[in-house]
Amino acid sequence: MSEDPIDRAVYFISDRTGITAEMMGHSLLTQFESLKFEQINLPFIDTPEKARQAVSRINGAADQYGKRPLVFSTLINPEVMFEIEQSRGMIFDLLNTFIHPLEEELGIGSAYAVGRSHGMGVYANYKARIDALNFALSNDDGNTLRQFKDADIILIGVSRCGKTPTCLYLSLQYGILAANYPLIDDDLERSNLPPELETYRKKLFGLTIDPERLQQIRTERRPDSSYAEYQQCQYEVNAAEKIFRSQQIPWLDTSTVSIEEIATIILQTTGLERRLHG
Amino acid sequence: MSEDPIDRAVYFISDRTGITAEMMGHSLLTQFESLKFEQINLPFIDTPEKARQAVSRINGAADQYGKRPLVFSTLINPEVMFEIEQSRGMIFDLLNTFIHPLEEELGIGSAYAVGRSHGMGVYANYKARIDALNFALSNDDGNTLRQFKDADIILIGVSRCGKTPTCLYLSLQYGILAANYPLIDDDLERSNLPPELETYRKKLFGLTIDPERLQQIRTERRPDSSYAEYQQCQYEVNAAEKIFRSQQIPWLDTSTVSIEEIATIILQTTGLERRLHG
Repeated sequence: MSEDPIDRAVYFISDRTGITAEMMGHSLLTQFESLKFEQINLPFIDTPEKARQAVSRINGAADQYGKRPLVFSTLINPEVMFEIEQSRGMIFDLLNTFIHPLEEELGIGSAYAVGRSHGMGVYANYKARIDALNFALSNDDGNTLRQFKDADIILIGVSRCGKTPTCLYLSLQYGILAANYPLIDDDLERSNLPPELETYRKKLFGLTIDPERLQQIRTERRPDSSYAEYQQCQYEVNAAEKIFRSQQIPWLDTSTVSIEEIATIILQTTGLERRLHG
Repeated sequence: MSEDPIDRAVYFISDRTGITAEMMGHSLLTQFESLKFEQINLPFIDTPEKARQAVSRINGAADQYGKRPLVFSTLINPEVMFEIEQSRGMIFDLLNTFIHPLEEELGIGSAYAVGRSHGMGVYANYKARIDALNFALSNDDGNTLRQFKDADIILIGVSRCGKTPTCLYLSLQYGILAANYPLIDDDLERSNLPPELETYRKKLFGLTIDPERLQQIRTERRPDSSYAEYQQCQYEVNAAEKIFRSQQIPWLDTSTVSIEEIATIILQTTGLERRLHG
């Protein structure tokens, strides 16, 4: 059917979402990018019965492709794992491989508990996340409500440089209260900070972007507008960077980095503490 | 200083954000929850020089706590890894442990490439994410713009049952175009679907929530409002669930599951394809 034949089937098996197994698997598979993999997530495998169904699928793929599938597992429960080991896949036992050395080093047995969700921490974490998300949404660009006093961080930069996605990511992933402030022409014409931001200068972090990239992004949003013209983009970016430099605000060019990387760099640069844990 | 003394320092070391190392480390450490760990992320360790600085920190923690720190690494570059191995930490070499068996199984050498970012895929992925995020933001609750025709999925449910965070997560994590529609009193009073949704019934997925939990969430948002009264919450939840059942819409109770789990269950139940990969 497809022009590129598939070299292997890959299964991610876990007793919860499979996100950890997928991230590990992707990191490993990107080291072999000449091959084409069919990747299937099998989440919530938490009983021997469900494990046996997974084994049927793995064995089916072994027959179909004539090569044994790769199976990345974060299963902990020994009975469920036992079933998966009966499959014809090659198992990468991502957690158990390290549990035994950890037990020896720490001098205590592991709980071998399935999908540990950190007991009492769950609701507190959920609330911190949702509170942070609501904060980010109500302190975003267009909104007049600006609770800068309560913000952990305030991202500043020109329109479409990546402030909104970064704020949402910081809130969902780390529970950080992230506001943002778009630098518009009025702000860019002056050489000092807008008075609203002056009070909170320790919370400021600047984002900038390559003018060509900005033009591309703005053109998709508003084709043929003066807002999307290269000259306008270049003017705004230059003026914003001038403010960051003269006001000694830490800043980052987002042009070639992912949202995860922007967030990580912000945490590292500012020493900002996460509000969510594990 | 703290009442709970720290048993071990834990370092997450990577050449990029450290998110994979942290997820793996957290999964492993939750199996030992009687112990208290100090967890430090050291991202962007991509030169031997930066690795030597990391080694100093690890060795400092070994002195401070009198026990060797745990080091979870996703480093690939052999020269950088060599430096880390000189530390007095106990190294968990999360990727390399599996790279060698993978090479043998696949019959080709790995690229040993640092922070692979999937070449040409980056901009396409970035754009898919931002497009999806903008879609989620402009098709959220209060907004009148409803591009249900273009949506991959439409989440329906009463106010504050988890629609917005789930839509944002689906967009950021998977690039899925997720809209949502709040079921208000007018919708709940009828026994069939609102006409607007009837056309798109194959895209619908219902979210519900325990009425007590809903009361708690609404009370924090609007204390002492009729909106937050237990009776109102119970009425709305019952009416919404009745619609899901009678209209045969797949649905999920979000009360005790994380946003990641809600998203995973939605993908699994609907067979919806991700638009972002690796």
